[in-house]
Amino acid sequence: MRLIRVNMQQGKALSEPVPPVYEKLGGRALIAKLLLEEIPPASDALGPNNKLIFCPGLLGGASVAAGGRLSVGGKSPLTGGVKEANAGGTAGDALGKLGIKAVVVENQPEAGRFYLLHIHGEIADLLPADDLRGFGTYAVSEKLQERFGKSSTIISIGQAGEQLLLGACIACTGEADQRSNLAARGGLGAVMGSKGLKAVVIEKPTGGGMQPANKELLRSTAQAFAQKLINDPKLGTQGTQHLYGTASIVGAVNEIGSLPTRNFSTGNFEGAGDLRGEHMRETILARGGKVGTRCMPGCTIACRNLYVDEKGKAIVGTLQYETISLMGSNLGLANLDDVALLNYMCNDFGLDTIETGAALGVLIEAGLASFGDAKGITALLRQVGEGTPLGKLIGSGAVTCGKVFGIRHVPAALGQAMPGYDPRSLKGNGVTYATSPQGADHTAGNAFGARAQVNPLATEGQKELSLKLQIIAAMLDSTGLCLFARPPVIAEPQLMANMINGIYGWNWTVEDLDHFYRDVLRNELEFNRRAGITQADYRIPEYMREEPLAPHQATFDIPDAVLDSVFDTL
Amino acid sequence: MRLIRVNMQQGKALSEPVPPVYEKLGGRALIAKLLLEEIPPASDALGPNNKLIFCPGLLGGASVAAGGRLSVGGKSPLTGGVKEANAGGTAGDALGKLGIKAVVVENQPEAGRFYLLHIHGEIADLLPADDLRGFGTYAVSEKLQERFGKSSTIISIGQAGEQLLLGACIACTGEADQRSNLAARGGLGAVMGSKGLKAVVIEKPTGGGMQPANKELLRSTAQAFAQKLINDPKLGTQGTQHLYGTASIVGAVNEIGSLPTRNFSTGNFEGAGDLRGEHMRETILARGGKVGTRCMPGCTIACRNLYVDEKGKAIVGTLQYETISLMGSNLGLANLDDVALLNYMCNDFGLDTIETGAALGVLIEAGLASFGDAKGITALLRQVGEGTPLGKLIGSGAVTCGKVFGIRHVPAALGQAMPGYDPRSLKGNGVTYATSPQGADHTAGNAFGARAQVNPLATEGQKELSLKLQIIAAMLDSTGLCLFARPPVIAEPQLMANMINGIYGWNWTVEDLDHFYRDVLRNELEFNRRAGITQADYRIPEYMREEPLAPHQATFDIPDAVLDSVFDTL
Repeated sequence: MRLIRVNMQQGKALSEPVPPVYEKLGGRALIAKLLLEEIPPASDALGPNNKLIFCPGLLGGASVAAGGRLSVGGKSPLTGGVKEANAGGTAGDALGKLGIKAVVVENQPEAGRFYLLHIHGEIADLLPADDLRGFGTYAVSEKLQERFGKSSTIISIGQAGEQLLLGACIACTGEADQRSNLAARGGLGAVMGSKGLKAVVIEKPTGGGMQPANKELLRSTAQAFAQKLINDPKLGTQGTQHLYGTASIVGAVNEIGSLPTRNFSTGNFEGAGDLRGEHMRETILARGGKVGTRCMPGCTIACRNLYVDEKGKAIVGTLQYETISLMGSNLGLANLDDVALLNYMCNDFGLDTIETGAALGVLIEAGLASFGDAKGITALLRQVGEGTPLGKLIGSGAVTCGKVFGIRHVPAALGQAMPGYDPRSLKGNGVTYATSPQGADHTAGNAFGARAQVNPLATEGQKELSLKLQIIAAMLDSTGLCLFARPPVIAEPQLMANMINGIYGWNWTVEDLDHFYRDVLRNELEFNRRAGITQADYRIPEYMREEPLAPHQATFDIPDAVLDSVFDTL
Repeated sequence: MRLIRVNMQQGKALSEPVPPVYEKLGGRALIAKLLLEEIPPASDALGPNNKLIFCPGLLGGASVAAGGRLSVGGKSPLTGGVKEANAGGTAGDALGKLGIKAVVVENQPEAGRFYLLHIHGEIADLLPADDLRGFGTYAVSEKLQERFGKSSTIISIGQAGEQLLLGACIACTGEADQRSNLAARGGLGAVMGSKGLKAVVIEKPTGGGMQPANKELLRSTAQAFAQKLINDPKLGTQGTQHLYGTASIVGAVNEIGSLPTRNFSTGNFEGAGDLRGEHMRETILARGGKVGTRCMPGCTIACRNLYVDEKGKAIVGTLQYETISLMGSNLGLANLDDVALLNYMCNDFGLDTIETGAALGVLIEAGLASFGDAKGITALLRQVGEGTPLGKLIGSGAVTCGKVFGIRHVPAALGQAMPGYDPRSLKGNGVTYATSPQGADHTAGNAFGARAQVNPLATEGQKELSLKLQIIAAMLDSTGLCLFARPPVIAEPQLMANMINGIYGWNWTVEDLDHFYRDVLRNELEFNRRAGITQADYRIPEYMREEPLAPHQATFDIPDAVLDSVFDTL
């Protein structure tokens, strides 16, 4: 395998053998290590000393079901710490098949100049891309697929990334015209913008692709793994996650009183019924949209949808739970058509919908629009594309909006907005939000699925649950597997070891895996420590400890000392 | 002496005896200790758990020349750490004469309600002040002096503090109609706004005032001290600081190439001649304004001026060096009339001119106006009073403006904008900016006056110089003395000990004093440590290490390891 280093100052991309220190790493694990080794921890996240890393997980390119996610990483301009955000689509698979361990984008070009990185076979070139400037991610990927072929994968930023907005994300194309698989969190789109990199084009690999070390071991374990996914009652052809996607949980989160509503001021939304996955599916099918499609080659879960308007015209795909909660109930909007439009706009601007939904919630509390006023909210969001000062502020995320407008109710941890679970009534998630080196992030260890084992309102057991989930998340994010593929990996971890061994010819045991994944968290925490992040930063906002949340009148009451001890047994 | 605790939630102000832990402390020393003892270090600076402290220094009320400054403190919403900002005027003297060690404002009222604290004799009352809402500090102090008497001291916030803008300051009235002695830095005006406190009225004390323990010792040493000030060649009736005020150094800072110019992009300003103190004095005198007036009772330095327009009408008083550099050369403005108008607007809105000048410099780099375009810049600043989103952003300070507009050239340390000395060509100040627990602050240890002893461009000697100056600054800020009163205190420290002993009947030696002042820094650093501030935060912006500054092509090249060791010998 090889590593591509792209020097944006010199305008050159060069391949090199993978340095030994990175050889056994992939995805989030590789990003954590690379940050520790190569990025001065106190450096300016939008300056020349930060690096932007694209890499597949360890399973990337091996055609393992649900195993082709792309990890993107760097120092986050939003949290000031380590950041890995991963996206579905075809990029992870394509990079893996090309034998590319990572693309590391370094330094900066002359201010205001934009380039695209063109990867085809053995070659990687930087080409001028000033003509793409100002376009959203939809137009950019369309133009580039016209130019480089429909089967090319396009990774791009929109206006938000160009403007270096801290809520900017990175969009990846997927199977069959999909334009919005997003490495959403932590402002990595701004890092890409700061590198003057408007897009990466990966031409579809031709030829045999990856040569696994033990073809038979890989084939048999990958097949067993895929079968387990198909047999899983939640993931199979009648499973809720296949039928309704991530939106399947809207009703349940509302029932436990954790659905972010009107800037996290209550945990129940009276309009939740119209936001449910079941309702979404009916609407899409009645209008002629798509459900049950996949983003990655070979995925058997196929949780994706294409939400369309009343005339059957595409609005956005895929409409997901976090967007529905942050841009739906959190803004007082009970109509999926409204949420879908806001979602499309964010995707096109290249903005994280969680961060932006939280920012809009804060600005509505500040009086800039009304909860439930779709027209007013859409007008606010439109300003991002127009580049007005208010638009830039909206795109800067919830914490900055709270600072500028003097709003104390900012649902965020480590500078990053909380996803769709109020931590006061799902306390395990509160522990994860506060302590994850990634900032408030549901994919870093989501306790919602464990609510039958640990009472979401209890203070006991949350710390242990969060640690366990954070380790599993570090595993999934390092292999390229989707979060939804978690059940069989937990049930039979040797499967995972064998898939990796099949690809690389290693002899990893389950213990090796465990050690490996714990190291990911250790490296991330160490980078953050060097970057100046302390226990005083790993916190839940003060107001969530003081202001009770309906309907349970719950506060976040897990003591700081408990938060400080989460990683004691790491 | 007594301490007044004002509970804004209960609407009550109660006097209590001074707790023993605070007995021997004043000004900045008292604030540092009170923060450590009473404020949870990770608390929200604009939430109910922060406290706002007003206190005189140890000399307050004793009629010592230049010794009546008011210290204001709390956790800073701008730096996230300890903050003490002090102001001239009559407040420190009045509080001292009333036997008030400190006024500690706690908790918060119902959102949107404003109050004023009325202190007269033994009594302190909270009164409704919603009728003052929306007014600037000039109108507020005029209205309140009409109501409570011309001799009352008024401490107030303007629109910026009401809006909780992070660059908001606190204005104090002084002798003879002066309305703008400012506790400027660190966003304490926003803390005052968050407490719903629009103003404090201190009626002029009647009767004998403070009863010193050793009247004769106080009288004789205070007299000797005043005489030393009068005899000082810089401070006496023909001294530059008396004649030209703080603006006396414009020419010299420009000459060493450290004058912030066009967002700190060069250290020389072609228009510096027209900004010089000498030119200012001539202009003021020719137009019928005032120079050589004092802000505090009994001050013999009298560095203050009243800058007037061509018709002799007051624009602002007092026009000072930091404002002239940050809102003059830093914005490309070479006309003092323009600077004076911006200064007046900031004072009336209750905005720190350093923070706001730096913010405007950043926004001009972002393209929102042009350097040198007074009309465009004034229009930008006007938005603060109008409460527009852009106005709120301007008032939020340089770091937030840089974040929102993706500008990397943000002259700040620990979240606070740098004052009027580019640290690349005055490296001692760079050490102070980076390492002071107060953030970038010239009053925390200004190396400019020591340029004959330590070459401003050398890397050697700066660390030792900065530490020495930071200790002296902690001393002055704890006694209520003005920075200009530094020379005799350094020359004969026993004078200071004897003044304190004369007031309190203690037996402090010069060694006691030294220990006391070092403790101030120790306590501040400890509060910051607990608040999550680390060595990674005590830094000079990365770009100042990389981009050389004309005319010396100097970078800030004092290694981080040296910065980390400044307090090793504290």
